[in-house]
Amino acid sequence: MKIAFLGPQASFTQLATTQLFPDEELLPQANILDCFTAVENGEVDKAVVPLENSIEGTVSMTLDYLYKTPSIKIEAEAVMPIAHHLMIHSENRIEDIKQIYSHPQALAQSFHFLDTQYKTVQRQDFSSTAAAAKHVSENPELKIAAVANQYAASLYGLKIINRNIQDFEQNHTRFIVISKQQNFYTNDSLEILGKKSGLLITLPEDHAGGLHQVLSVFAWRKMNLSKIESRTLKTGLGNYFFFITIVGKWHPVLYENALEELKSIHAEVDFLGNYQEFLLES
Amino acid sequence: MKIAFLGPQASFTQLATTQLFPDEELLPQANILDCFTAVENGEVDKAVVPLENSIEGTVSMTLDYLYKTPSIKIEAEAVMPIAHHLMIHSENRIEDIKQIYSHPQALAQSFHFLDTQYKTVQRQDFSSTAAAAKHVSENPELKIAAVANQYAASLYGLKIINRNIQDFEQNHTRFIVISKQQNFYTNDSLEILGKKSGLLITLPEDHAGGLHQVLSVFAWRKMNLSKIESRTLKTGLGNYFFFITIVGKWHPVLYENALEELKSIHAEVDFLGNYQEFLLES
Repeated sequence: MKIAFLGPQASFTQLATTQLFPDEELLPQANILDCFTAVENGEVDKAVVPLENSIEGTVSMTLDYLYKTPSIKIEAEAVMPIAHHLMIHSENRIEDIKQIYSHPQALAQSFHFLDTQYKTVQRQDFSSTAAAAKHVSENPELKIAAVANQYAASLYGLKIINRNIQDFEQNHTRFIVISKQQNFYTNDSLEILGKKSGLLITLPEDHAGGLHQVLSVFAWRKMNLSKIESRTLKTGLGNYFFFITIVGKWHPVLYENALEELKSIHAEVDFLGNYQEFLLES
Repeated sequence: MKIAFLGPQASFTQLATTQLFPDEELLPQANILDCFTAVENGEVDKAVVPLENSIEGTVSMTLDYLYKTPSIKIEAEAVMPIAHHLMIHSENRIEDIKQIYSHPQALAQSFHFLDTQYKTVQRQDFSSTAAAAKHVSENPELKIAAVANQYAASLYGLKIINRNIQDFEQNHTRFIVISKQQNFYTNDSLEILGKKSGLLITLPEDHAGGLHQVLSVFAWRKMNLSKIESRTLKTGLGNYFFFITIVGKWHPVLYENALEELKSIHAEVDFLGNYQEFLLES
């Protein structure tokens, strides 16, 4: 199988994709749109893209493309704790390092550590954590370090000086596996966190209490929501769609009735699938 | 007054900030955290950060820092249509251009135009649209173009070849003005789109229908919501807070009663302010 993912090489999304699809052909894409396009055109079987909290792509793009391409569904969700490491070229010593390169968000997430341990070392923004690691590996004479993930350190043969330098222990990134077939993805070697269902709901107009009405449909059925996010439609400033995930596994009739009820209040519903949530290693 | 904004120079956030604060001292910051820190420490009076749909910062960081720093409130919201332009060094001719540089998201947002008009020209990811424009201005011999905004073209003296090359006419970015004083921001030279209120609501546990209960508080008062977004708390994978904006201006007693009612269902509420929404030029 061919699996597209949001690149570059050694991105956090690749780290997720190698765990979700260890034996498949992985094809890095330049951006989230390219991942969706590759799936839609049948160039790949599936793609892995960030859904929440990523430093590599504007995650709102994922929701927008899910909305724009109704043929694409969700097969799985996966959560990975964020772990940033400080790494250098193996020929260098940490005492000689003059600059620390990384994605601005990764530098921000490691702010307290870097400010305490390497206060006098200048920080330099780079387009991604993976590109920063590559730059360090190719330029030993520059005496620079990178903040990146474990996979980047292995791929580019860098020496990790400090592990887990991120400020919040429990910060994480969330990914989804998308496809047109909507097969039920599972993987015995990964821990399953639970079952979920994803829906995109569009309201006919931005009317008071409309969202409340939508949520009532799930609330009185005791179907718990774990995520809700409103996104503006591109047609204007005041129109919204909502991405909702329901936790747990429910009787199919309950879904059918809920969807019927949503139609009766003139909400458009795109059912993205029932799927499992997996825990990944960082 | 000193105003921090998410840089670099010629970022979309600077384009917004110059319209919101034309006569103040503007201080670019490397990331969203630095904007919040500068406000919290009193180094600046206010800051402008992206709230929605930005290609320059992971906007979820804005919500997370609003949550983590309760002393920081919202003074204004501003919407700017996204406009990407293709620009080159004035010494070059567009026929000679070999590569187009920009932020990967800006290249994605201009995908259809570039794929139609410049199919054979290679695209190259750069850390930001502004940095790409700067790179073009400093390297005329490389025969490269940039996709960036109007402000970047002016600042770096570049020649715009194609205007408004973004694929979706109505795509936009949303910004907020944050401060500790929570003064009422207004500006006679900007169009006012409406009045809003922002709230951060934390539920005691992730219980079925909890969010529905919260929304009921506003629904039966006919207070319409224009945005709702759930964010995971850093303490674990299953706990959430919600960012909600209410549209319109309501009697203070209505807010007080709504907040009292939220407390009675054990929701923690951080009221971020009543403020106006402005339309900016792109």
